[in-house]
Amino acid sequence: MEPSDEQRSASSSSHVFVHNPHLDTMKDDILYHFSLGTKTHDLPAMFGDVKFVCVGGSPWRMKAFIEYIAAELAMEDPESEYPNICAGTDRYAMYKVGPVLSVSHGMGIPSIAIMLHELIKLLHHAHCTDVTIVRIGTSGGIGLEPGTVVVTKQSVDATFLPKFEQVILGKTVVRNTDLDQGLAEELLQCSKELNQFETVIGNTMCTLDFYEGQARLDGAFCAYTEKDKQDYLNRAGEAGVCNIEMESSVFAAMCKLSGLRAAVVCVTLLDRLKGDQLSSSHEVLRNYQQRPQILVGSYIKKQLKAKAQRS
Amino acid sequence: MEPSDEQRSASSSSHVFVHNPHLDTMKDDILYHFSLGTKTHDLPAMFGDVKFVCVGGSPWRMKAFIEYIAAELAMEDPESEYPNICAGTDRYAMYKVGPVLSVSHGMGIPSIAIMLHELIKLLHHAHCTDVTIVRIGTSGGIGLEPGTVVVTKQSVDATFLPKFEQVILGKTVVRNTDLDQGLAEELLQCSKELNQFETVIGNTMCTLDFYEGQARLDGAFCAYTEKDKQDYLNRAGEAGVCNIEMESSVFAAMCKLSGLRAAVVCVTLLDRLKGDQLSSSHEVLRNYQQRPQILVGSYIKKQLKAKAQRS
Repeated sequence: MEPSDEQRSASSSSHVFVHNPHLDTMKDDILYHFSLGTKTHDLPAMFGDVKFVCVGGSPWRMKAFIEYIAAELAMEDPESEYPNICAGTDRYAMYKVGPVLSVSHGMGIPSIAIMLHELIKLLHHAHCTDVTIVRIGTSGGIGLEPGTVVVTKQSVDATFLPKFEQVILGKTVVRNTDLDQGLAEELLQCSKELNQFETVIGNTMCTLDFYEGQARLDGAFCAYTEKDKQDYLNRAGEAGVCNIEMESSVFAAMCKLSGLRAAVVCVTLLDRLKGDQLSSSHEVLRNYQQRPQILVGSYIKKQLKAKAQRS
Repeated sequence: MEPSDEQRSASSSSHVFVHNPHLDTMKDDILYHFSLGTKTHDLPAMFGDVKFVCVGGSPWRMKAFIEYIAAELAMEDPESEYPNICAGTDRYAMYKVGPVLSVSHGMGIPSIAIMLHELIKLLHHAHCTDVTIVRIGTSGGIGLEPGTVVVTKQSVDATFLPKFEQVILGKTVVRNTDLDQGLAEELLQCSKELNQFETVIGNTMCTLDFYEGQARLDGAFCAYTEKDKQDYLNRAGEAGVCNIEMESSVFAAMCKLSGLRAAVVCVTLLDRLKGDQLSSSHEVLRNYQQRPQILVGSYIKKQLKAKAQRS
């Protein structure tokens, strides 16, 4: 554990910030939902070289991502599978190849928040510097062709406001959901160079529920009409919302607090103005889901190449 | 799909209610996060006999539960493993033996809400009747010996009020979090008969976050003191809160709306007045986690025995 002086002085460099004086007084720190800990694992040795973290809901997709990125970076190990670093638990899955870490976060704000608390502490304990983090996910689009990739400008709540409400000791604290605009622009530029699929920058609405919370008509409960739904989604669209998902607000808030350069890159699986059910074929949906991976993979490759040329 | 007349008349029997007129107009219903659907699967044949549903966060634990219950009910199949009915997705895992369904729900309110929307529709499409549902989970205790099992009387929010706030079309709707008191008493009686571990009935606080939301001092961020934490948890205790978890409020609200007889049975893994980290040995934690399974297994066995004697 670093002394807090060191943490504070880190503000001039690009360390990962924890904001918790209590951590300094703990003999060891158990990252319970990762099945890792400072006493049981040499976190600096395991993770000290991490520069890119990609997170996404599905453990299968995060495994597929690490396989994809290993091939892209020509860092495949033909001798071995990529082991799940969190094999001691089924809460999250984690994979690593070179400077890239891939972690699943489940669905919804609470699930990704638990993961991010432990990830931020892990990066802190491992003394990582200059870390970029990207959430690669799926979403419902508003007025976009299915398969369009959205890089989030601002994450907004169900009333289209750019804020995240964190309840602490029973009181609501409002947090900023700004993401790194420079990183968003770089990702858009990468997509233009790739020229494989449409990518846009826009606002992302983050909800606490997939059915009633996103104005779907196909949940177990629905007390509103098709017109109510259309009105709500149209108002969202007028407020600049391009897509809807369930994790971006707390992701933006926590990454900002900890000084991580962060972006959200989600593909739209359907146009919510035209329907609610995910009825595209398995093949089509799988193709769509690969798009954020391809975009972020291309970005990471470009960054590493530029770095190699500089040194 | 049943006509809505039939749905309405079901109020005199014990069908599973959906409250959504739009479902009647849909040709088929894709339960996306289960990788099941009315067109692709014969849901009445697969699930029509379900009488007990057990849900819990961890897919491994829900698989262990179905193995345990199969042995308890002498319904083991020595020829085969219990297949994951949702093998086409990694969002949730689902297992079935006889009248018992076991489903994982991940962590947090949004994750369990998605699962419950699709589960309620599944039970509705399968024409299930007289279904009892129990969440078996883990929690932090307040002033209880670790390993104590809490059967929830009322699920309360972070201000200790028995309500769940559902955001619909950007507006907050308050829902009741009542659970079935008769079922809670029957479960307590079962535990007395078992006489293997301590079980109490009490209120359960349901939070949106594991760290700051539960007054932990060991998250990535913490701007309050040990005294603030103790004051908050003591106030919770005075309000009748015995334990803290992250799913009970929406579980209670949705089960009540759909007419499911519901209970929440969680073991406390630690006493939060004494600490925050889950530092007990793997063995001890595993033993604790089996307790809700043992209690609910014993309850199901007793119910099926009583039913067999009646018929």
